[in-house]
Amino acid sequence: MLASSAVIRRQQFLIRTLGGYTDQTHLKRMQQTKAMSGTAFEADSENILRAITPNLDPSKHKGQAGKIAVIGGCREYTGAPYFAAISALKIGADLSHVFCTKDAAAVIKSYSPELIVHPILEESYSIRDEDKPSISSKVLAEVNKWMERFDCLVVGPGLGRDPFLLDGLFLVTDSLDLVSGYPLAVLTPNVNEYKRLVEKVLNCKVDDHDAHEQLLSLAKGIGSITILRKGKSDLISDGETVKSVSIYGSPRRCGGQGDILSGSVAVFLSWARQRLSAAEGDLPISKINPTVLGCIAGSALMRKAASLAFQNKKRSTLTSDIIECLGKSLEDICPAI
Amino acid sequence: MLASSAVIRRQQFLIRTLGGYTDQTHLKRMQQTKAMSGTAFEADSENILRAITPNLDPSKHKGQAGKIAVIGGCREYTGAPYFAAISALKIGADLSHVFCTKDAAAVIKSYSPELIVHPILEESYSIRDEDKPSISSKVLAEVNKWMERFDCLVVGPGLGRDPFLLDGLFLVTDSLDLVSGYPLAVLTPNVNEYKRLVEKVLNCKVDDHDAHEQLLSLAKGIGSITILRKGKSDLISDGETVKSVSIYGSPRRCGGQGDILSGSVAVFLSWARQRLSAAEGDLPISKINPTVLGCIAGSALMRKAASLAFQNKKRSTLTSDIIECLGKSLEDICPAI
Repeated sequence: MLASSAVIRRQQFLIRTLGGYTDQTHLKRMQQTKAMSGTAFEADSENILRAITPNLDPSKHKGQAGKIAVIGGCREYTGAPYFAAISALKIGADLSHVFCTKDAAAVIKSYSPELIVHPILEESYSIRDEDKPSISSKVLAEVNKWMERFDCLVVGPGLGRDPFLLDGLFLVTDSLDLVSGYPLAVLTPNVNEYKRLVEKVLNCKVDDHDAHEQLLSLAKGIGSITILRKGKSDLISDGETVKSVSIYGSPRRCGGQGDILSGSVAVFLSWARQRLSAAEGDLPISKINPTVLGCIAGSALMRKAASLAFQNKKRSTLTSDIIECLGKSLEDICPAI
Repeated sequence: MLASSAVIRRQQFLIRTLGGYTDQTHLKRMQQTKAMSGTAFEADSENILRAITPNLDPSKHKGQAGKIAVIGGCREYTGAPYFAAISALKIGADLSHVFCTKDAAAVIKSYSPELIVHPILEESYSIRDEDKPSISSKVLAEVNKWMERFDCLVVGPGLGRDPFLLDGLFLVTDSLDLVSGYPLAVLTPNVNEYKRLVEKVLNCKVDDHDAHEQLLSLAKGIGSITILRKGKSDLISDGETVKSVSIYGSPRRCGGQGDILSGSVAVFLSWARQRLSAAEGDLPISKINPTVLGCIAGSALMRKAASLAFQNKKRSTLTSDIIECLGKSLEDICPAI
């Protein structure tokens, strides 16, 4: 295991990477905004999506529409990081990188030449115990070199459960202090992960009759990070407010849809922060946390794409079919020109 | 590090490979042509593209429409050399080879069976220091065997930053003498690379108000090589004249478009030289440097394909979508029959 100082270093590093949003501005905004605790209501998701999506402007250069990195992909899981990374590109990010294990890299690369894939993580099955500390440092140094270049990191798709691999990175459920209190952190737990979070942080069972209040308490309990709870309706809270996204959707539950969602949220979160910082508070959305805006837009787009794909493919709808519908869905809501 | 004699050998080798254009003919032509220093104007790019694209003739044999080699592709980057190499084929080259590292080869091969991929480069992480000199000689000998067979080399897409790998090849920004004074060299710098070149050669900052003069001075400063400066308009100079290509284009800035451009310029440059040498000076384009003709045609085709792809795919346009539009774009400008 790494010493806690290393954990702290990584945490600070994650914060720095994500743009040093130390967030006096945001904290003030949050204090000014009346907390709508417990009053969940459907987000105006299409308008939010339009408000944060940047105009396409020929004078911009590569990178300005977003540089995303996905940290995930091991011997067993290669689809998940691919889905997250390619979704980011299909929505409009300029560059999408994947940091994965050596075994996963060639496979993920072969899915698409559009991704930049770094084979730099290590799994314990391939290394000796005595080499772990030095390899761990090497991996972190290598990852460190790159992290500052990205607008948003997606940590986790297809990381698997290898303790060494996870230790070299961030296992949020076991070490909540890695994200606690960090205003730009977004968690997108599935049913089981949500259950574990509720049990660990709130010390109770998931209560679907009180879903909004419980989500609000959970987000607040982890230091006001943002949580997107996936479900029939997606629920989003940053500990101050709860929003839901219920439009569109598909009854198909093929694996990988959560990865599209995480890639989408990463892009929209980056755009929301860019938009809010450029507009200096004069937008209708200015009082909303950019992480919440990113979750709302990401959820709405993912649900619309799933709905379109299902119309075409019905029971045979796969995650790749949904990814193919991201562009059209975005164009329907927010035409490029 | 390699001895400087090896560097010189490589330089001469590069010259030989590209066709022994020792260039008394070209130098005379250049002297006869009135230098239009500072007077940049929009190139008649569609007519130039038509003038240099060879007729398709059933009596021709494989190879006559162009044999291109891309030198690039390492552990991290596999998309870039693929984009350059496949673009050359899609425009009409007969053969497209890639010379890359062992790690990259299987992946690049998997993108397309149309490419011939040579896994012969080495990265420093996989070899011991004491083996470097012998491996370096081996790599060069292996590359040497092949180079004479090509009409144009694209050096660089996805070479990454490994010093050993780069030393084994050509790192232009650090060693300008590798291309300086070589009339067939074309550089296609992106924003950052252009900045570094201007600072190094002209000892000043990039000045966008004086873009044409600066580009002209830069090209002249590197011994009258040709530079294609990518931007909202592409600017092209060989130190004697400046041309711009502004038609078409797309506001999407996804990574990889520069690789399509380099593959396209390679094909059109080869065709322009072939055309000029066959026509013996009686064409309207005869007084223009073939490298400039190649850049103009490559830029125009790339921009048209990007524009077509964007019409279809809007924000979700990826580099592969643009490559798929190269054929139709070429057919629109210059029908095959």
